[in-house]
Amino acid sequence: MAKELTSRSENYSQWYNELVVKADLAENSAVRGCMVIKPYGYSIWEKMQATLDKMFKETGHVNAYFPLFIPKSFFSKEASHVEGFAKECAVITHYRLKNNENGTGVVVDPEAKLEEELIIRPTSETIIWNTYRNWIQSYRDLPLLINQWANVVRWEMRTRLFLRTAEFLWQEGHTAHATKEEAIEETIKMINVYARFAEEYLGIPVIIGTKTESERFAGALDTYCIEALMQDGKALQSGTSHFLGQNFAKAFDVKFTNKEGKLDYVWATSWGVSTRLVGALIMAHSDDNGLVLPPRLAPIQVVIVPIYKNNEQLEKISEKALQIKKELEKIEITVKYDDRDTHKPGWKFAEYELKGVPVRIAIGPRDLENNSVEIARRDTLSKEIISSNNLGETIVKLLDDIQTNIYNKALIFRENNTFTVDTYDEFKEIINNKGGFVLAHWDGSAETELKIKEETKATIRCILLDGEKEEGTCIYSGKPSKQRVLFAKAY
Amino acid sequence: MAKELTSRSENYSQWYNELVVKADLAENSAVRGCMVIKPYGYSIWEKMQATLDKMFKETGHVNAYFPLFIPKSFFSKEASHVEGFAKECAVITHYRLKNNENGTGVVVDPEAKLEEELIIRPTSETIIWNTYRNWIQSYRDLPLLINQWANVVRWEMRTRLFLRTAEFLWQEGHTAHATKEEAIEETIKMINVYARFAEEYLGIPVIIGTKTESERFAGALDTYCIEALMQDGKALQSGTSHFLGQNFAKAFDVKFTNKEGKLDYVWATSWGVSTRLVGALIMAHSDDNGLVLPPRLAPIQVVIVPIYKNNEQLEKISEKALQIKKELEKIEITVKYDDRDTHKPGWKFAEYELKGVPVRIAIGPRDLENNSVEIARRDTLSKEIISSNNLGETIVKLLDDIQTNIYNKALIFRENNTFTVDTYDEFKEIINNKGGFVLAHWDGSAETELKIKEETKATIRCILLDGEKEEGTCIYSGKPSKQRVLFAKAY
Repeated sequence: MAKELTSRSENYSQWYNELVVKADLAENSAVRGCMVIKPYGYSIWEKMQATLDKMFKETGHVNAYFPLFIPKSFFSKEASHVEGFAKECAVITHYRLKNNENGTGVVVDPEAKLEEELIIRPTSETIIWNTYRNWIQSYRDLPLLINQWANVVRWEMRTRLFLRTAEFLWQEGHTAHATKEEAIEETIKMINVYARFAEEYLGIPVIIGTKTESERFAGALDTYCIEALMQDGKALQSGTSHFLGQNFAKAFDVKFTNKEGKLDYVWATSWGVSTRLVGALIMAHSDDNGLVLPPRLAPIQVVIVPIYKNNEQLEKISEKALQIKKELEKIEITVKYDDRDTHKPGWKFAEYELKGVPVRIAIGPRDLENNSVEIARRDTLSKEIISSNNLGETIVKLLDDIQTNIYNKALIFRENNTFTVDTYDEFKEIINNKGGFVLAHWDGSAETELKIKEETKATIRCILLDGEKEEGTCIYSGKPSKQRVLFAKAY
Repeated sequence: MAKELTSRSENYSQWYNELVVKADLAENSAVRGCMVIKPYGYSIWEKMQATLDKMFKETGHVNAYFPLFIPKSFFSKEASHVEGFAKECAVITHYRLKNNENGTGVVVDPEAKLEEELIIRPTSETIIWNTYRNWIQSYRDLPLLINQWANVVRWEMRTRLFLRTAEFLWQEGHTAHATKEEAIEETIKMINVYARFAEEYLGIPVIIGTKTESERFAGALDTYCIEALMQDGKALQSGTSHFLGQNFAKAFDVKFTNKEGKLDYVWATSWGVSTRLVGALIMAHSDDNGLVLPPRLAPIQVVIVPIYKNNEQLEKISEKALQIKKELEKIEITVKYDDRDTHKPGWKFAEYELKGVPVRIAIGPRDLENNSVEIARRDTLSKEIISSNNLGETIVKLLDDIQTNIYNKALIFRENNTFTVDTYDEFKEIINNKGGFVLAHWDGSAETELKIKEETKATIRCILLDGEKEEGTCIYSGKPSKQRVLFAKAY
């Protein structure tokens, strides 16, 4: 192997950190809490962006761009929002530097102090709803279905590449509606878009549900989420969609004339996913040899490696390899032919395993004679010699198989690690020793939720949207419960 | 007309400002100097991005993402760079707000002061070269051909939508090379990519040249640029590509072992275009009726408007319109069918003229009888009744014609407004009264350049890359000159 990884069983957290760096996905920057997304990592994000953007447009949304800066006073307008977001943030106080008087570098120019401080957006509800006020007069101006691809900053104290960084990339949808029903419908539509994206592209099965009051987005009446289970038994919140009611319309005085000619406040939603999804992708599927990428999001879907002893052999193999590359590219498969003479085949095999390339094709002199190639799957690590006739068809099918297999593997893992418990002892036993998703009855109170969190570090991930409405008694308080909710330790 | 525009001849500057707002491209935000890019304006930028991104990838570049924040000390490392960029900038001094003691809103928490201030990137050479230090050890790691799509902030005092805003969107390429020759080749390759994009997509002819020393990018040894002429006779710098020599490698200690086994500093380039190009697009082609968009970047290429008196007519027309829409979409043409019953056809005609939709198709009851449609071109405002057979072919050809015509019109305008002068009197006469590009001899000194700028407001836009090397005498000083250079007043 080119680069030795810590194994997952040895230290899952260290395995993750090493993998992100060794597979050239991202690294820490010189700025505390901010990451550099390297080209290989960024190309995964680009594929996610392209897919999501298409899904957003198919559901009627358009993109726009709002300022990076938010005037401080905007945060005070929505009471719960300020509590949630305006505290740990990057604050701009000045707009000029000047030469230091002793001639060494530059210092902040005290003359250039802003009258009102500007905050780097942690999320854009406030600046967007302040803008919507001028865009919406009548029900004819509604709905507004707008998305923004942007960077945001939340001053996190403990950061981890992709999972939690001070600056991160995301998309944030902000929609405005004439009725409550339509806004709720939009909120649910978008969490379903996220769920479909997670399952069909990331290959990660997710649970859709709503957050408890204490876990809701600051300013929302309801937060829908998708929750995924990672290989270490922890949950990762992978996307959220918020029904904001009329909170932001009231805070920013956004009224419209409805069909009946009456003035009313506008109804709002917002929804987002971020570069955190790259973290989810890594943690859900990868193994001790490196990344395992779902074919639909893999920057390189097929790599071809020549096996040769001399230049004459290489020449003949290259001819065949380039012919295969062309054939596959014609049917939209992304192929890399690695004919570098600076590295041996074994080194390359390990490298592309580390980088999670779904399919590897090796071609040696004997393959030329037999009209064959060796195919290796990254997900199962299995190898096979096959005829190189109709290779396009074979590879398309293989990539589909891998996509399905990765999903199924994650689904079986989740099923094997989802537990239904009826007592607090069982609950603690599983949370402390096994991890995983735990379905248990809860009395619906924030006090119980907090107690359980304090005692076990497990939180309510969500109240299942299509969970059975089986009644029972709370595992903690013994009070009545209307349905089981999903608990887990979480990222 | 739906919305009356000031005419260009009356007040060009006001015409531009009104057009940007009335055509729903962008508007000023609540944050000084920052704009909101509205969905219609953003969709033009998206088309530009998609095209440029493809061109960058075809020339071997990959995308990555670097932090928004740059530690203040980084700017002091490259002496001329700090002068050019670190002065007017957004400075982050704190990372937390707290509730005001009197209970009204939030204030900056003085406890949360950063040890070192962070600057919002005005451009990313410093943070990127600080990162490259760890990525480059040997000539085998070179070249690095990386691009970033990002927002940047320069604290401009006088801002104008798209042309000059405090925050703007752009791409910045940052490449690293083993040799000087290769870096210069890259610099020139990328200015040519920009020129091709401007001419083939924006439909704007550009002059390629190098900047004089005083107009160079802060930290560059040479700055290549493309310069376009706007309808008011002013130049607009539309893209730059910088040969940075070893300046940033030296500032950030980025060395590599070359093929001969010796340590050397890495050679650098950087290049960028921004949302300013949307401004160029508007100013180069639009007229007193509104936008004129080149078909290759138009968010809507064809709009279909039904002309009807009753629902029965509308139904039949809609059937035909949707059939045409489908036919055109099949060949990748973007079509909007506007069957809103809230606005009259005349209103819609004016609206799509304002928004610059290249082709309008109107269908009335008589067209159904005659198997015809009325086609209107936005660029010439001409109309024609044509058969609706083979409409796809007709429209493809028409869109090509419009793209070519827009370019040719801009080229003829530039040719008619490019003047060769030999005396300072002639020079001043043209700069003060006519505007346009002026080719004149210059002695090569910064003093003369500055004097001319002070006296006429005209600047040297560039030293033409493929200009004739005709010798002469400087129009200002009478000293010898090696070639004419390009002067103009500029945005």
